[in-house]
Amino acid sequence: MMLDKLSWRYAVKKMDPSQSVPEEKVEKILEAIRFAPTSSGVQPFEVFVVANPGIRAQIREAAFGQAQVTDGSHLLVFAAWDNYTAARIDAVLEANLEARGASETLTAYYDRLKGMYLPRSEAVNHDHAARQAYIAFGFALAAAAELEVDSTPMEGFDPSKVDEILGLRAKGLRSVTLLPLGVRAAEGDWLQGMSKVRKPAEELFTVLA
Amino acid sequence: MMLDKLSWRYAVKKMDPSQSVPEEKVEKILEAIRFAPTSSGVQPFEVFVVANPGIRAQIREAAFGQAQVTDGSHLLVFAAWDNYTAARIDAVLEANLEARGASETLTAYYDRLKGMYLPRSEAVNHDHAARQAYIAFGFALAAAAELEVDSTPMEGFDPSKVDEILGLRAKGLRSVTLLPLGVRAAEGDWLQGMSKVRKPAEELFTVLA
Repeated sequence: MMLDKLSWRYAVKKMDPSQSVPEEKVEKILEAIRFAPTSSGVQPFEVFVVANPGIRAQIREAAFGQAQVTDGSHLLVFAAWDNYTAARIDAVLEANLEARGASETLTAYYDRLKGMYLPRSEAVNHDHAARQAYIAFGFALAAAAELEVDSTPMEGFDPSKVDEILGLRAKGLRSVTLLPLGVRAAEGDWLQGMSKVRKPAEELFTVLA
Repeated sequence: MMLDKLSWRYAVKKMDPSQSVPEEKVEKILEAIRFAPTSSGVQPFEVFVVANPGIRAQIREAAFGQAQVTDGSHLLVFAAWDNYTAARIDAVLEANLEARGASETLTAYYDRLKGMYLPRSEAVNHDHAARQAYIAFGFALAAAAELEVDSTPMEGFDPSKVDEILGLRAKGLRSVTLLPLGVRAAEGDWLQGMSKVRKPAEELFTVLA
């Protein structure tokens, strides 16, 4: 159960570089990302699964030296579409028609979506795409916890440098989050012994019965 | 396992208004939201748990009449902070010091955070807070699936109207997503019979080994 692992997981600060996450667990985390819901089913992002040590060393530098990037065994880079385009929405429509059969309803639906998205600014559209990537990021974090895979959600990096390292701009992508996957070190993690801090339910939730 | 429920869940279009989600399952979904990770542990959002039929009827109107808002038994409204303020960050620091004991490291950490957040525009800060809410939104969706609670992630609503209905602006909040919880109807859901459409792994993922 993911629900039993909510306290087990934490943002690991020190990973053991001698240990690796098994590939079958990485595959399951990727499946969770792939099945995460997104607005109108568009899935406006891609994920780069970086095991390569040289590339991770470069990304670590762009992430202010955070050691989990290289001490983990895999690094997921979530990259959202820079913008919505007719071609991108049409490709989603095509995949829908192929899986579900010809449908005027579906065609009209995605035509309306283009009418809504395409006049908007690139900044608004990228932000919307990034939010969808964050849902999938949440799914990845929950799946990793369920599998007892350690991870560290990271926003603290220079996106333009990561974009350059992975050649994202040419693909119409912009990096939004990093997620190193690895195995927590037994020692040397300043956060590991600390109690988890979360707001009490009465502060976070308002019940309107 | 959440991982076994990825295909079970879908964005339910027709819920059975005669059925309710048990309160203990709603509580577990709220715990998943509460334990979701957020940037620097700030949890810059609140969630309104609306069972009240009158309020849900108003929100349904603000959500272009989508029936799940009233046919479900509970509606979660995710509302992100409109901005970061010194008082809000200080409250997070206080909670940390209370749980973890006096710490110069923690104090310095949140001082640096204020130095980074407070000079930024309200729009940039709200967007950042909204992204954190989307991680928790992902956790809620994954937890609901694990518990076999039906849900419908929604961005299709007029946020300013929902803000007004719930009095969010006076609380420094802005609605970002809705999540009706309920029980899928046996009939009348146009999406229920359709196959799930997701991009193939090779389109979504790039492996750099």
